[in-house]
Amino acid sequence: MLRYFTSGESHGEALVAFLSGLPAGLAVDQEFVDRELWRRQQGYGRGGRMKIERDTAHILSGVRHGKTIGSPIAIMLQNRDWQNWKEALPVETGDPEKHKRVASPRPGHADLAGALKYDFPEARYVLERASARESAARVAIGALAKLFLRELGIEVLSHVIAVGATSIADREIAWERVEEVSRKDEILLSCADPDAEQRMKEEVDKVLRTGDSVGGVFEVVAHNVPPGLGTYAQWDERLDSLLAGAVMSLQAVKAVEIGSGIQAAHSPGSAVHDEIGYRKESLPTGFTRTRNNA
Amino acid sequence: MLRYFTSGESHGEALVAFLSGLPAGLAVDQEFVDRELWRRQQGYGRGGRMKIERDTAHILSGVRHGKTIGSPIAIMLQNRDWQNWKEALPVETGDPEKHKRVASPRPGHADLAGALKYDFPEARYVLERASARESAARVAIGALAKLFLRELGIEVLSHVIAVGATSIADREIAWERVEEVSRKDEILLSCADPDAEQRMKEEVDKVLRTGDSVGGVFEVVAHNVPPGLGTYAQWDERLDSLLAGAVMSLQAVKAVEIGSGIQAAHSPGSAVHDEIGYRKESLPTGFTRTRNNA
Amino acid sequence: MLRYFTSGESHGEALVAFLSGLPAGLAVDQEFVDRELWRRQQGYGRGGRMKIERDTAHILSGVRHGKTIGSPIAIMLQNRDWQNWKEALPVETGDPEKHKRVASPRPGHADLAGALKYDFPEARYVLERASARESAARVAIGALAKLFLRELGIEVLSHVIAVGATSIADREIAWERVEEVSRKDEILLSCADPDAEQRMKEEVDKVLRTGDSVGGVFEVVAHNVPPGLGTYAQWDERLDSLLAGAVMSLQAVKAVEIGSGIQAAHSPGSAVHDEIGYRKESLPTGFTRTRNNA
Amino acid sequence: MLRYFTSGESHGEALVAFLSGLPAGLAVDQEFVDRELWRRQQGYGRGGRMKIERDTAHILSGVRHGKTIGSPIAIMLQNRDWQNWKEALPVETGDPEKHKRVASPRPGHADLAGALKYDFPEARYVLERASARESAARVAIGALAKLFLRELGIEVLSHVIAVGATSIADREIAWERVEEVSRKDEILLSCADPDAEQRMKEEVDKVLRTGDSVGGVFEVVAHNVPPGLGTYAQWDERLDSLLAGAVMSLQAVKAVEIGSGIQAAHSPGSAVHDEIGYRKESLPTGFTRTRNNA
Repeated sequence: MLRYFTSGESHGEALVAFLSGLPAGLAVDQEFVDRELWRRQQGYGRGGRMKIERDTAHILSGVRHGKTIGSPIAIMLQNRDWQNWKEALPVETGDPEKHKRVASPRPGHADLAGALKYDFPEARYVLERASARESAARVAIGALAKLFLRELGIEVLSHVIAVGATSIADREIAWERVEEVSRKDEILLSCADPDAEQRMKEEVDKVLRTGDSVGGVFEVVAHNVPPGLGTYAQWDERLDSLLAGAVMSLQAVKAVEIGSGIQAAHSPGSAVHDEIGYRKESLPTGFTRTRNNA
Repeated sequence: MLRYFTSGESHGEALVAFLSGLPAGLAVDQEFVDRELWRRQQGYGRGGRMKIERDTAHILSGVRHGKTIGSPIAIMLQNRDWQNWKEALPVETGDPEKHKRVASPRPGHADLAGALKYDFPEARYVLERASARESAARVAIGALAKLFLRELGIEVLSHVIAVGATSIADREIAWERVEEVSRKDEILLSCADPDAEQRMKEEVDKVLRTGDSVGGVFEVVAHNVPPGLGTYAQWDERLDSLLAGAVMSLQAVKAVEIGSGIQAAHSPGSAVHDEIGYRKESLPTGFTRTRNNA
Repeated sequence: MLRYFTSGESHGEALVAFLSGLPAGLAVDQEFVDRELWRRQQGYGRGGRMKIERDTAHILSGVRHGKTIGSPIAIMLQNRDWQNWKEALPVETGDPEKHKRVASPRPGHADLAGALKYDFPEARYVLERASARESAARVAIGALAKLFLRELGIEVLSHVIAVGATSIADREIAWERVEEVSRKDEILLSCADPDAEQRMKEEVDKVLRTGDSVGGVFEVVAHNVPPGLGTYAQWDERLDSLLAGAVMSLQAVKAVEIGSGIQAAHSPGSAVHDEIGYRKESLPTGFTRTRNNA
Repeated sequence: MLRYFTSGESHGEALVAFLSGLPAGLAVDQEFVDRELWRRQQGYGRGGRMKIERDTAHILSGVRHGKTIGSPIAIMLQNRDWQNWKEALPVETGDPEKHKRVASPRPGHADLAGALKYDFPEARYVLERASARESAARVAIGALAKLFLRELGIEVLSHVIAVGATSIADREIAWERVEEVSRKDEILLSCADPDAEQRMKEEVDKVLRTGDSVGGVFEVVAHNVPPGLGTYAQWDERLDSLLAGAVMSLQAVKAVEIGSGIQAAHSPGSAVHDEIGYRKESLPTGFTRTRNNA
């Protein structure tokens, strides 16, 4: 139903988020969109860039009188640092001397593969587009999707559950706190377990001292999802497939699991499968599960 | 290979053209893009709007140092009249009193179907998006596609071959003049037959006097197209199908023919089929045709 | 919502029609599907092949206990002449001597373009797939689509309105007879105007005597279509565009018009636009039109 | 470039694999396709069904004289047990008494979600389509894709690297043996580490004794892949995204990682990133990596 795309380079004039297919009449809360953009810029141990950005969504089309009108939505996120880059990355021919070469492709990035693919003599253009800054445009799109889902009573939230060797103590306890975490006005690491968050911060501090970085795991939680989204009828319409593809398309993501998928691979079925029960008064369908692994 | 979309309302802040899939390294001649936008605004008997517009392509992404870089291209076409419309069509809630209702849906437009579809109490939002102004964004995309095809030696041109009851005298003679017509700095009706063009102008004058309008036919000519684009292998990959769908998606188009398709429906096969010959030295494949109906 | 594809060669073992996306619970009337296949094989002046075929739909999947089950539907149409072709067109290497070459590419067909595209030394494989026989698989898919639309009260019918220089006298009178024509057990030319049909037959007789063929025009009529299918919001979602692309993908079609599109191109707007009225009791929306050109 | 779909129910007459987009002229080794189908049916501790199946690919279209001809390929995999099921799952209305209800939806399967989605009173139809048997059709398609990639020098192989708590000792040693493992005529667990394979077998034996099952991990290895497949330019064209979506669409898969993705989440960047070097004579591009984590 929805189609979305982004365009824009990390240090170009602007990112553009394009979203088609939202129904007409959806109230668009611009503060919520900007808050989501702000949340993306938080986190501990991030580079100085985040301070420059302070993204705000400039809606160019598709929203009128505070509501969607059924037309495609284009959102521009202007680069506040463009004045300092317009000579290095001009749209026009410009002065080649001002070009900022990226002669050493960075491992763990698209730099080398991209330069080989497009036959670039260096990796500047790859870095510009493969940059995690592109995800800001996706956050704007995601914020609109969240507003739409909210009308259906569905809430999508996320939190950090591991940084390096540190993991939260208990997933189920964390689930209860995720909403609260997502509403905070000060964000350290978006972790719903305060003790774990403190230890995660220490992990980050440690690697920052040595100029290193460290991996982590975030979990996306969706409340109130009706059964039957997607379908098993064809491989490319399965919900798991669509979700895995979308998440894996984020710049730093190298693994995706549904529920307790990774642990399940090393477990007996009896420890993994969520037993189905039935209790007439249980909403919305009467069916119950004792666990939530799948 | 290419994906393209547009967004924007007729009297909104801007149209955005989105184009993904052009290879890196294509020289982007901005003057050519702007000239194509200028050509769209020419024609005889058009409304006053065309004088306000004077569209210029503001490339936001995907082009650096005068060339494509493999990233998606976003082009913004700002609405020069936006200052006069921002209170009538604000993104924010705004003042509902300033809204300009379109209470009478116009026949021959999407107004009524759109208002019924989206349950709008009047047709303003439909008019805004279903407007022919949207095609300006497609012209910008088409200009880039033409620049790409030019690298492959392919030229795509168009001209007007009928207005109302007036048609050009001879299609084949016109074909020879189409390129010349498309290069003119003054455009009357983009017709390659000067006599017919004069009579077309008179048709337009006549209907304008009575407040009426008049239909017409344009032909798109592509030179140097290699055989084998598209494929007969699946219905939705056939070149005829893709072309017909694209042309029929233009706001005022209600019929499409390939070659002499309409006339062919009323003719014997012997008068329609283009006989195939072979002459080794005939470029590029040696095969020849005595006619060009298909 | 629906995706459909076909596979199969004209003289191969079978065509397969593939259809995904029909909801579960739709009653599948196999007699209706077979009748639609039978109707495709009727007509006046057709080749002897039609007598061999007598297609019947062999449903392999997606239908159980007489109803769709939400799974993709595959329908096999076996080629009754396969025994006579299996040595000429074996799946395995086979005996190359038995191959039936098509050394002279036929004009008005994909033969030449296809052979050049795929670098075939002759056109047999192109003829096999580009053949109009492929449309039998689409008829099977279309029959299921009609059964689905029927549940929504929508009827899609078609009739022949011109053969060569002969056209029906009055489109509006014909519309009233189309349903009746589509129910006949003997089909001459599926024309709803008996006088015109007789003259069409004579046109065909005439060209058959000289070994020629003749073009024609068919019209598709849909009753009870709700306003708002498709959308003006994006070029590739417009109903006109989707219909034109689908119709133009049929093997012999070279032109498509929506309503009176061809004539409209030569007419003043006042003669074309369907005036909109309103009468509360007019179903389903209260809006009325005095004509049906668009 | 390629589009593929499957149809068919687990106990229906046949599965159909549909593949569109392979170029003409590719030699189709049917023995290889059947061997891939045979490999799918091997493994340790599987149900009795595997003995009934012995799938063979019946190519209905798209292959002639042992080669692809550019047309869509349809492959039928007949269900050898259909005679025993045709009264339980007839295409026609049939005898409802013969229907085999699945009244208890199985956890860890689509049974419950599917029945709720399509409003089925029991889960038979869901079980039939959501079944892992569907993957046989994908194996046939994958076999053709492998034959195509082989022409380009690319080999795609797979092996089991963990079952329950047992993992192989060393991934890099295993990589060297994967090809050999995939060529074996007797398959135990397709594990390239014989000691680990023996222990995996014991894990399976253990759970079988208690009527339980156990999870596992398989790895897909591709040799000789050129850099630059997919692109970072748009989220839905990234290679990681496409691969993750495809793998996650398999019936029992609940997690996907690229390279050492899962471990990377708990590691410092310095331990994960594959350092890039350059040695002119290193094929194909001169660039080298000391590790292969990404």
